[in-house]
Amino acid sequence: MEPSGPLNVGSIARLCKNFGVSELRLVSPKCNVTDKNAQLMAVKGGIFLTKAKIYSSLINAIGDCPRVIATSGRIDHGNIPLLEPENAINWFLDSSDGSAVALVFGREDSGLTNQELLLAQKVVTLKTIKNYRSLNLSHAVAIVLHEIHRCEEMKSNTDSILAPKVDPALPLELNNCIEEAEKLLLEIGFLYKHTSKARISKIRALLQRSEICPSEVAMIRGIVSQVRWALDEGKSSTD
Amino acid sequence: MEPSGPLNVGSIARLCKNFGVSELRLVSPKCNVTDKNAQLMAVKGGIFLTKAKIYSSLINAIGDCPRVIATSGRIDHGNIPLLEPENAINWFLDSSDGSAVALVFGREDSGLTNQELLLAQKVVTLKTIKNYRSLNLSHAVAIVLHEIHRCEEMKSNTDSILAPKVDPALPLELNNCIEEAEKLLLEIGFLYKHTSKARISKIRALLQRSEICPSEVAMIRGIVSQVRWALDEGKSSTD
Repeated sequence: MEPSGPLNVGSIARLCKNFGVSELRLVSPKCNVTDKNAQLMAVKGGIFLTKAKIYSSLINAIGDCPRVIATSGRIDHGNIPLLEPENAINWFLDSSDGSAVALVFGREDSGLTNQELLLAQKVVTLKTIKNYRSLNLSHAVAIVLHEIHRCEEMKSNTDSILAPKVDPALPLELNNCIEEAEKLLLEIGFLYKHTSKARISKIRALLQRSEICPSEVAMIRGIVSQVRWALDEGKSSTD
Repeated sequence: MEPSGPLNVGSIARLCKNFGVSELRLVSPKCNVTDKNAQLMAVKGGIFLTKAKIYSSLINAIGDCPRVIATSGRIDHGNIPLLEPENAINWFLDSSDGSAVALVFGREDSGLTNQELLLAQKVVTLKTIKNYRSLNLSHAVAIVLHEIHRCEEMKSNTDSILAPKVDPALPLELNNCIEEAEKLLLEIGFLYKHTSKARISKIRALLQRSEICPSEVAMIRGIVSQVRWALDEGKSSTD
């Protein structure tokens, strides 16, 4: 999300190669990601720079990934629970074969906002010593990718899958569903324009925590449209 | 051991600060370790650069450390066993209080020689994908320091709760809330008497999975009663 240092982006490209990442996606990068310094740091990962996809919003960048982990080093993460990498990663690795998973890293200076964190089902934080928590961006990427690799190896050693897991709903699907609900809740006066953001965040946090699946998203959309229909019925009978 | 990149040395200084390392020791550095680029990367770890001790041989640099772990990414390590970081680190952490322990990292291009590896009791290797094993030096340092921190935390195994946990809502509270919602959903025709049980079970499962808390239950009750109010408004205007 909005990286500003070409050295960092180049280093991350190298890490993508080191750890077998399939794609590097950048949201509104604040630097030239193919400049000389980036290429220099990327070494054999240079292809990730030239093939990097650029997006203008996070939701579009992760739109096709049912499982999303965001990272946060900020203290003011509100009620969003922060997990140890290992816990989130094991969930990540349960993904059904072939479906894309996304790891989201924030800006060098300010990380990800709480709104952005809420686009992920899980948020991890990396433990450092308390009085200097700010890791360099590419070091955070290195640690998380290595953790994934480590957990993958552990898993393949002791694989005991009990039941096929259902992937959560796609971020874009859930986002559309929440937007529809928000619109309705504004119309009926449950939400007010100036405070809706905070309340909608609570609903989003609740649904992310439950790892809501596609059929459940469809159910909520069904409720929203049925409420809307009932309201219209009431109105039309006044005509 | 003989680092040649000021950016790397600066990055490592920052990591020393992030992970509470007590001292950075450099053996025959091939670059100016206090140059502008190194300082830039070090950010708040700059003190590790200015206070770094310089040695002319590895044995002198680790001379006062009873426990030494070296790192290797090379394939030709002969008979020297390579360990997973976790195994070596737990041994490392058994060190008696106050005695220094050392972590040794090699040159950017060629790592540590087998002779150098043999100065350590344990040698660890970091797993990457097989066809691009070469990690950037500072990324290897980041991963190992994070592993140490992780193992330390597991060892001390105090509360690893990062966000204050809220107790889930009481079963009766949640049940009342769901019953109210069910009544409304029946009235507006989203549910039908003979099939409502199955659908309500789905909603219940979703909310249970999220460990819904009292304030969220209150929020859902608020939505239900606001929808009901909006419906009544529509009806009353027909009166």
